[in-house]
Amino acid sequence: MTAGGDTRPQVVIIGGGFGGLYAARTLQGAAVRVTLVDRRNHHLFQPMLYQVATAALNPSDIASPIRSILRDARNVEVLLAGVTAVDAAQRAVRLDDGATLAYDYCVVAVGAEPSYFGHPQWAPLAPGLKNLENALEVRRRIFLAFEHAERESDAEVRRKLLTFVIVGGGPTGVELAGAVAEIRRYALSRDFRHIDPRDATVVLIEAGKQILPTYPERLAAKARAELVALGVDVREGQPVTGVDADAVRGRDWTVPTTTVVWAAGNHADPLLDTLHAPQDRQGRIMVTPECTVPGHPELYVIGDAAAVPDARFASGTVPAIAPAAIQMGEYAGRQILAAVAQRPLRPFRYRNKGQLAVVGRGKAVADLPGAGFGGLPAWLIWIFIHIAYLIGFRNRLLVLIEWAWSYVTYGRGARLITGDDGVTPSESGA
Amino acid sequence: MTAGGDTRPQVVIIGGGFGGLYAARTLQGAAVRVTLVDRRNHHLFQPMLYQVATAALNPSDIASPIRSILRDARNVEVLLAGVTAVDAAQRAVRLDDGATLAYDYCVVAVGAEPSYFGHPQWAPLAPGLKNLENALEVRRRIFLAFEHAERESDAEVRRKLLTFVIVGGGPTGVELAGAVAEIRRYALSRDFRHIDPRDATVVLIEAGKQILPTYPERLAAKARAELVALGVDVREGQPVTGVDADAVRGRDWTVPTTTVVWAAGNHADPLLDTLHAPQDRQGRIMVTPECTVPGHPELYVIGDAAAVPDARFASGTVPAIAPAAIQMGEYAGRQILAAVAQRPLRPFRYRNKGQLAVVGRGKAVADLPGAGFGGLPAWLIWIFIHIAYLIGFRNRLLVLIEWAWSYVTYGRGARLITGDDGVTPSESGA
Repeated sequence: MTAGGDTRPQVVIIGGGFGGLYAARTLQGAAVRVTLVDRRNHHLFQPMLYQVATAALNPSDIASPIRSILRDARNVEVLLAGVTAVDAAQRAVRLDDGATLAYDYCVVAVGAEPSYFGHPQWAPLAPGLKNLENALEVRRRIFLAFEHAERESDAEVRRKLLTFVIVGGGPTGVELAGAVAEIRRYALSRDFRHIDPRDATVVLIEAGKQILPTYPERLAAKARAELVALGVDVREGQPVTGVDADAVRGRDWTVPTTTVVWAAGNHADPLLDTLHAPQDRQGRIMVTPECTVPGHPELYVIGDAAAVPDARFASGTVPAIAPAAIQMGEYAGRQILAAVAQRPLRPFRYRNKGQLAVVGRGKAVADLPGAGFGGLPAWLIWIFIHIAYLIGFRNRLLVLIEWAWSYVTYGRGARLITGDDGVTPSESGA
Repeated sequence: MTAGGDTRPQVVIIGGGFGGLYAARTLQGAAVRVTLVDRRNHHLFQPMLYQVATAALNPSDIASPIRSILRDARNVEVLLAGVTAVDAAQRAVRLDDGATLAYDYCVVAVGAEPSYFGHPQWAPLAPGLKNLENALEVRRRIFLAFEHAERESDAEVRRKLLTFVIVGGGPTGVELAGAVAEIRRYALSRDFRHIDPRDATVVLIEAGKQILPTYPERLAAKARAELVALGVDVREGQPVTGVDADAVRGRDWTVPTTTVVWAAGNHADPLLDTLHAPQDRQGRIMVTPECTVPGHPELYVIGDAAAVPDARFASGTVPAIAPAAIQMGEYAGRQILAAVAQRPLRPFRYRNKGQLAVVGRGKAVADLPGAGFGGLPAWLIWIFIHIAYLIGFRNRLLVLIEWAWSYVTYGRGARLITGDDGVTPSESGA
């Protein structure tokens, strides 16, 4: 794979998300060889995945092939492969085809998976929202539920088919609940003959005492009020104790439903277990102030995979959001260049730019350093920042047009159900 | 499903392709009740499916939910369901969930499937190109082959991975071969480090004596010359006798390859067997001059499912192309309205508007009544007609932008590999 006589240090980056990609970009053109390994061929703009799930955007609007993004980084090689282990002692990464990549420096940027808090059997019943396949599956379930309801004559079953439950009131849960409420009210309102999609119920369930737990109470209340105005049934302080094929249950309540989406928590990628380093409750590596594994200054762990202590946040760690992953990726790249040049290293410090969550058309909340507000201004900031971040001019332009079109027409352009099983027998509706 | 006291005649349309959709549109607002049944939720612009397969377009660019298209047709109901049988004697359509739809008039517009000429075992090795799932699967195979070649050290295996075989030299085969040749030359040329995608081989195999068999020899030769200029290996008069996991074989030749696409022939949908009416070799119903099943003037069969005699064509029947299906759909709708009003019926006559096939960027051939030509003029006509036909303004606009963008950048915007199995073990490369 590598040129025999090449003496440049070898960097292996695992993961082509925000962290891995920005690490690779920072190393572009430097006197190091870089191999970026990912099991998918595309970088994904995860914060907008819920828009694919609700058919406002196409998969390719929020994803770009990693190879094209790094096309001009001639010292970077992209490998489509799964990683089975990081052997910190041997400084080697093991791939799923048995091959091994030796490294001088390694950046582990593998992200997180949905956490079902010890109930893996809930996963097929309540998919999370981490990759394009998840998003298309959630889209399929939402739109098929309306189709099955249209054919269903039993009123009780129809009610169950037309109830959509989102578990988890973080930004993803809030955004998804708002989007489903809008689909039902606007995009689908005239499409059916036997049901009225506006009768559909959207339930957002949060275990903690408020939705958007990382936001000030005042802004969470604003978001709640906006969701309620869209007709969402917001339930706070209600931990879920059971999920099955036709209901979600709590301690003293049951919501009959056939469509559940899981946005309730993250667990870091199981690959991290192979590092044999201290992990927190979410499985994240408890890294040093330099974002490295204790005892291994050449082994970085960044993004959602890392627990980086930061007393400014209630959680005690830097939040698992894209800006943090980007900053850590750039930091890891710069640190590696400093180490190669034998320049001094500096600890990572997160520059907090605030947080944003969208509720719906023209509705959002912004928690910025020194200011917190909601409504249209927050939404416009959200749109601007997210489009600016989207990698590649083409995507940015098309996404803007898709949005503008949706905004004007209340339509959902990408409303296709695909998958091998377009029609499922309708008695369960699942 | 239907109102009890409603005395309007019931029309059941099976299939939401061009034929079924135009039949429904013709019946919109008339004093009939219409139920359109399809196992998919979207109408698909099949002639551009090869552009999804080659990642120039997104699925939603060429597909629209049938419900939205017929949203304002208040007398039309859309049902997402599979049909298992048409019972002509009982005037009933049986659905896959056991339900039955009684009809006064029925329009069967179920289209065709790829025909493997008695070799169904070739189907998984050489997918056809009939629906969005097919197109995404073909896309996945093409782009994964480049990924696997990038990781492959054995030169012979690499050569096999970089050989793309398209079986069948009709319009779909020609369009696909040209598009793959362009991807390799332009879109991917700078993305890899160990392979040069420009070394990839594209082979187009046609059993008959010329590609584009329904075109005049002179235009077929023009298309052939354009393909050869793009570097396609065009083989005519070469029937395929075997397909396996790493080669395509003819009588006295073998092409080692791991990626084969099947565009060699059609067979009508097996549902037609349940009509117990005469069928031609392709399984199409041999209809009356009124496009009905002999002995059943209330049962129409249209589009690719019907063999409509027409001495103007070498094949002896109206060609299986979108304009013919549209004309038959409108005709069936008008005939049903005439029958309801007890007005006289007229036989179907196809208005031949010619045929068009695209070879590549700015390259096409046009066989129009009274004129046959190639090159940029043919390509511009193709673009214009296809965009004009695309249903829904939004799609038309976005498709135009995607194309303009691809044209300017030689890029492939939609180049994502999705599917559960993003990475397959690489030893076979399949």
